[in-house]
Amino acid sequence: MANLILLRHGESLWNEKNLFTGWVDVDLTDKGRAQAVRGGELLAEQGVLPDVLYTSLLRRAITTANLALDAADRHWIPVHRDWRLNERHYGALQGLDKSETLAKYGEEQFMAWRRSYDTPPPPIEKGSEYSQDTDPRYADIDGGPLTECLADVVARFVPYFEQNIVPDLKAGKTVLIAAHGNSLRALVKYLDGMSDADVVSLNIPTGIPLLYELDDNLKPTVAGGRYLDPEAAAAGAAAVAAQGTK
Amino acid sequence: MANLILLRHGESLWNEKNLFTGWVDVDLTDKGRAQAVRGGELLAEQGVLPDVLYTSLLRRAITTANLALDAADRHWIPVHRDWRLNERHYGALQGLDKSETLAKYGEEQFMAWRRSYDTPPPPIEKGSEYSQDTDPRYADIDGGPLTECLADVVARFVPYFEQNIVPDLKAGKTVLIAAHGNSLRALVKYLDGMSDADVVSLNIPTGIPLLYELDDNLKPTVAGGRYLDPEAAAAGAAAVAAQGTK
Repeated sequence: MANLILLRHGESLWNEKNLFTGWVDVDLTDKGRAQAVRGGELLAEQGVLPDVLYTSLLRRAITTANLALDAADRHWIPVHRDWRLNERHYGALQGLDKSETLAKYGEEQFMAWRRSYDTPPPPIEKGSEYSQDTDPRYADIDGGPLTECLADVVARFVPYFEQNIVPDLKAGKTVLIAAHGNSLRALVKYLDGMSDADVVSLNIPTGIPLLYELDDNLKPTVAGGRYLDPEAAAAGAAAVAAQGTK
Repeated sequence: MANLILLRHGESLWNEKNLFTGWVDVDLTDKGRAQAVRGGELLAEQGVLPDVLYTSLLRRAITTANLALDAADRHWIPVHRDWRLNERHYGALQGLDKSETLAKYGEEQFMAWRRSYDTPPPPIEKGSEYSQDTDPRYADIDGGPLTECLADVVARFVPYFEQNIVPDLKAGKTVLIAAHGNSLRALVKYLDGMSDADVVSLNIPTGIPLLYELDDNLKPTVAGGRYLDPEAAAAGAAAVAAQGTK
């Protein structure tokens, strides 16, 4: 038995502005910081105390983890960061308004880009305002991808999970993963054995720890895990699903 | 040539209250948080960008590093945490007021405990209010020491530096160490080859990055290094030296 906690970052400046973010390194809002602290309080209150942290290379996940762990008095645990936990790269959509994109391209195309399993958005242009191709943190992967669909995220994140995180789980450690809507959807798909079709309607709310209790074969004892604040999670997931339509 | 940056945490709640802190895990003050952010801005302004971070297991150093790296846009670098970077354990003095301790024991004893190289304070009682012997982060070192003199800090930190940090420096990485007044005094003594007597009068200010440019033999090209804000550093070091006497 091992505990795996998934934590999507708190509300970011671009969540609030309703822009496609992807690999653009935006900060949390004050609400997002408060969500992160509350997430850490939930961990402490329910006695789910991480032994090790994994984060993406993006500020909104890193700061969420820092604030949550400080609130849970676990700021001192070991940390591992890797680009493979990053949000899905949103290609040429990065920096665009979700509602404007919906109005311009229509609902079918919009939902295909947002939620289809294997349709990436158009690639971002190298050197453009919201590209990461010269960012030093991605120098050893040639600047990173220019766009990704969810299948691409599964293909980069699941092997990292198996090689790096599973050994910690097998050693009985409680692992916290602080990451993003789509990188966590990729992992949940893998953990719960969801089909490509079913993952389309999966939405993960910001800032609420999702606990998976895993058996000795690392299978979830409860499909879908358990949010530490189920009411807030249900409301948050509905808000994510409605993005672009407001 | 390699760059090594030493950063003492910003002002803590117990710096402000003038209490002996040691391994007690107190938080930063708002002033301390602002110092940490300013420290990160100095790194960015002067183009001294860390590739890897080492911290103690104490909140005031961890939060200082988090805030500084976020301000320098280097929040995403790898992190290593170890108790060997912790502040000197202050034994039975932890939690006591510095001025009251000075008045009670006299200046000679007070300065021996604060600054002599090899006189530890009396050991803290296990299970007492400010001891760490049941803290989970020190479980694998049997709760940690019950008191330390500066020689004890040298004996634990320098081997860690040589085994873990030197390889990063030899690989040409810019290393940031976020730690404490006395653990950084121990390291500076080692780097600069200071005598046991000379280190007594060395004071390191809070929140101002101290840059050591090291040659190929990892010797400082300038003895004592260079503070990125020399005026603030001089004022800060004088304030540290005057503690207990105000």
